[in-house]
Amino acid sequence: MSFCLQILGSGSAVAQYGRNHTSHALIINSKVFLIDCGEGTQIQLSKFRVKKERIAAIFISHLHGDHYLGLMGLLSSMHLLGRTKTLLLVSPPGLSDIITIQLKYSNTVLNYKIDHVEVSGDNKQIVFEDKYITVRTFPLNHRIPTVGFRFDEKPKQRRINKEKLPNDIKLQDIAKLKTGQNITDHSGNVIYNNELTLPPRKSRSYAFCSDTKYDPSLIDFIQNVNLLYHEATFLEVHQPIAEKTFHSTAKQAASIANQGLVGELIIGHFSARYKDISMFSDEAKSVFNKTFLAKEGDIYCIDD
Amino acid sequence: MSFCLQILGSGSAVAQYGRNHTSHALIINSKVFLIDCGEGTQIQLSKFRVKKERIAAIFISHLHGDHYLGLMGLLSSMHLLGRTKTLLLVSPPGLSDIITIQLKYSNTVLNYKIDHVEVSGDNKQIVFEDKYITVRTFPLNHRIPTVGFRFDEKPKQRRINKEKLPNDIKLQDIAKLKTGQNITDHSGNVIYNNELTLPPRKSRSYAFCSDTKYDPSLIDFIQNVNLLYHEATFLEVHQPIAEKTFHSTAKQAASIANQGLVGELIIGHFSARYKDISMFSDEAKSVFNKTFLAKEGDIYCIDD
Repeated sequence: MSFCLQILGSGSAVAQYGRNHTSHALIINSKVFLIDCGEGTQIQLSKFRVKKERIAAIFISHLHGDHYLGLMGLLSSMHLLGRTKTLLLVSPPGLSDIITIQLKYSNTVLNYKIDHVEVSGDNKQIVFEDKYITVRTFPLNHRIPTVGFRFDEKPKQRRINKEKLPNDIKLQDIAKLKTGQNITDHSGNVIYNNELTLPPRKSRSYAFCSDTKYDPSLIDFIQNVNLLYHEATFLEVHQPIAEKTFHSTAKQAASIANQGLVGELIIGHFSARYKDISMFSDEAKSVFNKTFLAKEGDIYCIDD
Repeated sequence: MSFCLQILGSGSAVAQYGRNHTSHALIINSKVFLIDCGEGTQIQLSKFRVKKERIAAIFISHLHGDHYLGLMGLLSSMHLLGRTKTLLLVSPPGLSDIITIQLKYSNTVLNYKIDHVEVSGDNKQIVFEDKYITVRTFPLNHRIPTVGFRFDEKPKQRRINKEKLPNDIKLQDIAKLKTGQNITDHSGNVIYNNELTLPPRKSRSYAFCSDTKYDPSLIDFIQNVNLLYHEATFLEVHQPIAEKTFHSTAKQAASIANQGLVGELIIGHFSARYKDISMFSDEAKSVFNKTFLAKEGDIYCIDD
């Protein structure tokens, strides 16, 4: 089962140098979870051939324009492309008002429902859950209400070791084995589970820390994820501006990754003041070596 | 003085095949007049090096998303780039509500004022006027309130014929000559204006007919313009869909241009159902030969 993240935008408030506004597509087993939706996201989706009809849910971190202004256009395109399936939308409060007024003036009634969950980010609230994954929100530390999102695959079943499996085994015993139970053979002898199975594949995880100042309280929420995105709007030399605007530096993002014992770190949301962003890599890697710079179109897949 | 139109987007509701949502930049003597502002317009402005700080006014034809969803992002970027000069914004009613609610939730107070004129399009209302040009609105025939815009250069002064000008002429006499008056020489003899001047340069004009069904009542408003943009969402073969959705075909757009005795016609707003748009050209040219297909980045300059 795939678990891949595609970067659709790596820029910040003023989009420059080919860096689009923030949006990430997390593709899990053909379902697309869209995280933030800056202006032009639908164009990026087309460019990178991410199918809009596969979008199961959209998660908006906060209501600064560079994180959500592509939403109305995308909702409208999904309507025109014939979507009828309910869309889950998760965001801080206010987005319903913004959508409603725009639908009103364009005299549009969408031909699908939006199940809109407005969140504060407190208490690791579960905002999405299916057979495979759980999505939780957590609070970020920005100028307006802002939340992060953590995607965790659920614990998986043990894998059948096909080489060891007796030919006459019953389907119900296979089901038992997958859940870790022992079975008995025709003679009533116990066959221990680990004789016929292999350990489950690992459960993968991704956390998205949109705009936030450096805040060690985030570490609890992103602990041990395989892949962490943490904004890095500035370099350390501009740390006072980061502090003032409730943003982070590359070094601070790397510090969160380091303390959170994550697998890999992606940084992005680069300020338009930097044309060349190679320094972001140098700075972050000095603290956390497995750092990558977000770049439009790049894909990160986590093996299971 | 330049009078140039740059196409920023030629697509319709669902942006496809590299065709962006509608936006035109009319550049008159270094002032930029932005007409419609679909999603991604600010990215197009950067791409084609149209300076945002030169935008004097923004004209929005109607509140369907593909004509205005790039506005909030552009307003926000102009704020972040330090604009302090008042911006004229012209649109049908409702846009103020949409802007206000989004500024509220992003907790933003723009550092420039918006002078917002809400129009119905009736009575050729003048919505902008400076030393050089006049902009009027007129009603289009679409599913929601929609207006067109006509830009006319004001009549120009007569040009001084430098070869004929006496060396001892006074500045005040030059001013008189430019306005068409005769002057007198030292001996009191009348020097007739046409001995020292040439006819004024021509006053140029552009009319923008955004989404509209075929409506001959438009001809009165766009009569004799040098350059006409008229939407052509469909080919004639899909005329029933054009009729139903209050859009036009290429042939209908050309018919308006033909009856309006315009100089040149640009058609655009091509439906995503057409990947190849060459048929639009063939169809329109059969009725009005001087037809061009809108294409991102193309520039049309009118000589004076």
